[in-house]
Amino acid sequence: MSRLVSVLTSTGAVGRVLSSPQKNKRFITAAVSNSGISAFSSQQQQHTKMSTKCLQLENINPHFITMEYAVRGPLVIRAGEIEKELAQGVKKPFNEVIRANIGDCHAMGQKPITILRQVLAICVEPELLNSPLFPEDAKKRALTVLKGCQGSSVGSYTDSAGIEPVRRQVADFITKRDGFEADWQNIVLTAGATTGIKGILSMLKCELGGKKSGIMIPIPQYPLYSATIEEFGMTQVGYYLNESKNWGLDVSELKRSLTEAKKTCNPRALCIINPGNPTGQVLTHENIVEVIKFAHDEKLLLLADEVYQDNIYDKNSKFHSFKKVAMELGAPYNSMELISFMSTSKGYLGECGIRGGYMEIINMDPKVKAMLLKSISAALCPTTAGQVAVSVLVNPPQKGEPSYEQYLSERTHVLSSLKERAELVYKTFNSFEGFKCNPVQGAMYAFPQITIPPKAIEAAKKDGKTPDAFYAFELLESSGICIVPGSGFGQQPGTYHFRTTILPQTDKLKIMLEKFQKFHAAFMDKYK
Amino acid sequence: MSRLVSVLTSTGAVGRVLSSPQKNKRFITAAVSNSGISAFSSQQQQHTKMSTKCLQLENINPHFITMEYAVRGPLVIRAGEIEKELAQGVKKPFNEVIRANIGDCHAMGQKPITILRQVLAICVEPELLNSPLFPEDAKKRALTVLKGCQGSSVGSYTDSAGIEPVRRQVADFITKRDGFEADWQNIVLTAGATTGIKGILSMLKCELGGKKSGIMIPIPQYPLYSATIEEFGMTQVGYYLNESKNWGLDVSELKRSLTEAKKTCNPRALCIINPGNPTGQVLTHENIVEVIKFAHDEKLLLLADEVYQDNIYDKNSKFHSFKKVAMELGAPYNSMELISFMSTSKGYLGECGIRGGYMEIINMDPKVKAMLLKSISAALCPTTAGQVAVSVLVNPPQKGEPSYEQYLSERTHVLSSLKERAELVYKTFNSFEGFKCNPVQGAMYAFPQITIPPKAIEAAKKDGKTPDAFYAFELLESSGICIVPGSGFGQQPGTYHFRTTILPQTDKLKIMLEKFQKFHAAFMDKYK
Repeated sequence: MSRLVSVLTSTGAVGRVLSSPQKNKRFITAAVSNSGISAFSSQQQQHTKMSTKCLQLENINPHFITMEYAVRGPLVIRAGEIEKELAQGVKKPFNEVIRANIGDCHAMGQKPITILRQVLAICVEPELLNSPLFPEDAKKRALTVLKGCQGSSVGSYTDSAGIEPVRRQVADFITKRDGFEADWQNIVLTAGATTGIKGILSMLKCELGGKKSGIMIPIPQYPLYSATIEEFGMTQVGYYLNESKNWGLDVSELKRSLTEAKKTCNPRALCIINPGNPTGQVLTHENIVEVIKFAHDEKLLLLADEVYQDNIYDKNSKFHSFKKVAMELGAPYNSMELISFMSTSKGYLGECGIRGGYMEIINMDPKVKAMLLKSISAALCPTTAGQVAVSVLVNPPQKGEPSYEQYLSERTHVLSSLKERAELVYKTFNSFEGFKCNPVQGAMYAFPQITIPPKAIEAAKKDGKTPDAFYAFELLESSGICIVPGSGFGQQPGTYHFRTTILPQTDKLKIMLEKFQKFHAAFMDKYK
Repeated sequence: MSRLVSVLTSTGAVGRVLSSPQKNKRFITAAVSNSGISAFSSQQQQHTKMSTKCLQLENINPHFITMEYAVRGPLVIRAGEIEKELAQGVKKPFNEVIRANIGDCHAMGQKPITILRQVLAICVEPELLNSPLFPEDAKKRALTVLKGCQGSSVGSYTDSAGIEPVRRQVADFITKRDGFEADWQNIVLTAGATTGIKGILSMLKCELGGKKSGIMIPIPQYPLYSATIEEFGMTQVGYYLNESKNWGLDVSELKRSLTEAKKTCNPRALCIINPGNPTGQVLTHENIVEVIKFAHDEKLLLLADEVYQDNIYDKNSKFHSFKKVAMELGAPYNSMELISFMSTSKGYLGECGIRGGYMEIINMDPKVKAMLLKSISAALCPTTAGQVAVSVLVNPPQKGEPSYEQYLSERTHVLSSLKERAELVYKTFNSFEGFKCNPVQGAMYAFPQITIPPKAIEAAKKDGKTPDAFYAFELLESSGICIVPGSGFGQQPGTYHFRTTILPQTDKLKIMLEKFQKFHAAFMDKYK
């Protein structure tokens, strides 16, 4: 495992997560010196001055120090500083920072879906029920939510699992999507997919026979997983996606990874991200069947991160939910424990800031489910704004309703534009010297492999950065483009990647790719 | 400690939290059999059937099993069942459940503050900027927030600590409130106070010298604290509030508690809830000075839960923020580490479902603060709806602005009505046989002590419940009133209490108190 761990945790820092306490200190220094917080320059001196503090790096949760979250890491902090410098009139070779580091649709110019905002506005200001500005189907949807709220106010706490009518709508949506019935009592609304994923991982934290719980995650992965596993002090069990097979999933690699992990931990769950983040692949039906059978044989809880289920661009790809495939397979697979996560932040809504999402919890022991529901009750409830957004996600306007045409047109526009951009990014990157990029079949990202010349690797080493982080920092400083180095997601040792979103609107994306091309040519010239 | 722990964790269950693994099993049974989930009747049988499950009570996070959150515990689950029974036409001696268990203002009929909802509606549907329905000051406030959002959309992720203009508004609000400058970079927006409190407690989890971190909390306390401490596997260090001194805080008791705790854990932080929940007291300036000096001498991080700062009813009481008092004291107290929590769920807004809040982090080592900010970044950002609510909380209409009169009138109405209800509850309870209730100086709760006759204590024992839970269940089943037994908050051994909110609107509150009185008289008759 230690090989994987070292690859995964260093976003720019040549550091490793070392679990033995006496080694922790070394990592602390590495992590802090690379955290991008400029106030730390005279670290040692400051430390002496501040020895009266209750909280110091040496006496806080050590996992806070070792965990990393690259999507908002040092590069992004630097990007924010550059934005401020630009605003103060500092001269740069560019006029603006292009934030291609995070799947933040509206920030990159995507427009909200009108009906969602209308329903939300009515829910928060029910006076608008009387306004001719809003269509009847928006009002009807708002009323359904308001009737589910205590005192008909979104200002009331809801059940910890969310408002009953919205949970029922989610169940109906899943039933229609899969052709297998979903039980509304298995639906738990969340604040984005994040709180659901964190809640489930927390439940899996358990030491048995002196071994910690292990969580199997893809490499590359979305760093919420690595960060949470680290924060909770669990063991990360990485399995590599096969880049040469379009980031497909080899069961033989799952087996290898599991066998190795069993020596040091109790593997308990298998996380799948489909469509993939950061890799953009869409799993085939056949691949999903293999994964389900593997999880069943190995008694692993299946965690299906399916937040990009509406983001499919490849004409030969189709989204198959893990639940549907498990149900189709029949016994014993249809009684396997499976949790699927969904979000209003992705798809065609892109409502990241609202924080809406849900999880469907299938076949869980009722006694265990009761403990899970109890555990989330102390956080009271997910935001009602997010619950409203989920409501519109799963119950959009239907043919014949006043908002249908507009909704359809907006949705089609967002998804076809994303499809166009997915192709543009894929094709453009493959035209760069030393770039190898798989097609973006789904999700919102490209994850190209780049060849970094030995001279650049040497320069990175001198700079105390991984080569891919070095490349990303150079790109940011010279062009204003903010991407995330592959080391933040994990990659095969000796390979270098980065993740970019496909979210800048087409015009801006073209400019970004041109700038990128120029930077890359100059970088290659400099270090070849 | 074990005495305290046993008092605190059993809400209806005669169980104890036992840390040694072999004893855990006993508690599991006790906890489950009292969880109010009806599906567990044939527990043993089901267990045999389900032995193929990946997740069972024996192999999940043991803290999920031992943690309790009484405010949404078995009584509240039963209340929900009763509501469904009533809806199905089941005959009961009452027509509705009165939910006095949770500080959920709008659910109990409180109306939202108009300008907050207007600003929120405009933020989610900026078309409303053109509508004559909304006043200019609401539009101006919405624009300030929108300008702080990437892409001018509340659908974009914000910084993990929140939108900069709102953080600046919070800092200005605190500066004006205290007369001491607040730095906007010390402000972190949260989803209610809850996520802030959980994030800080998580950071304090650290084993040093073989001892766990201990967190000092008042007894009685708000069970978010006990639940989170249990969930994170830390040590709860209870200090008793002095009921005979109007729930005041004795420094001698803090010292006793700390001395005892040091034998088994590393006490790291001192939580204060002021105004008090569930106890309704408002700390005096003098008392706050003593607490600050104690925390300083003992090198404890001060956590000031000040979410009820606007809820002061007693004419001789005044809210003093811990920050202001520490700053007034000068060196060395003005450089102490202190975190203060605030929420949009309480005060006169009562916007619980929206999930808005903030924390001010004072004098924290910048290196530690960087780790804290990193740790919250993986959860991306608090909901923008909550951030908008915070914005209105700290920047309400000013004299001369179009919404000022309406805002003032709404605010005054809510607070004066709460004051009236605080007095009504206090006086009425003190007229009941065997009730002793301290004045409700602030917050939203009364926490009377009740004398439970020996015959009732015996009946409770037979029923597998603590006497106060037994009383609360009897009250619920016979009158529909839902309160929370004192054991959910903690109380001196051998004493019995309950918490009721003062939130039902005055007419309904009067009905509730009448019903309560009848129930109590009958209960005493039956068990005397």
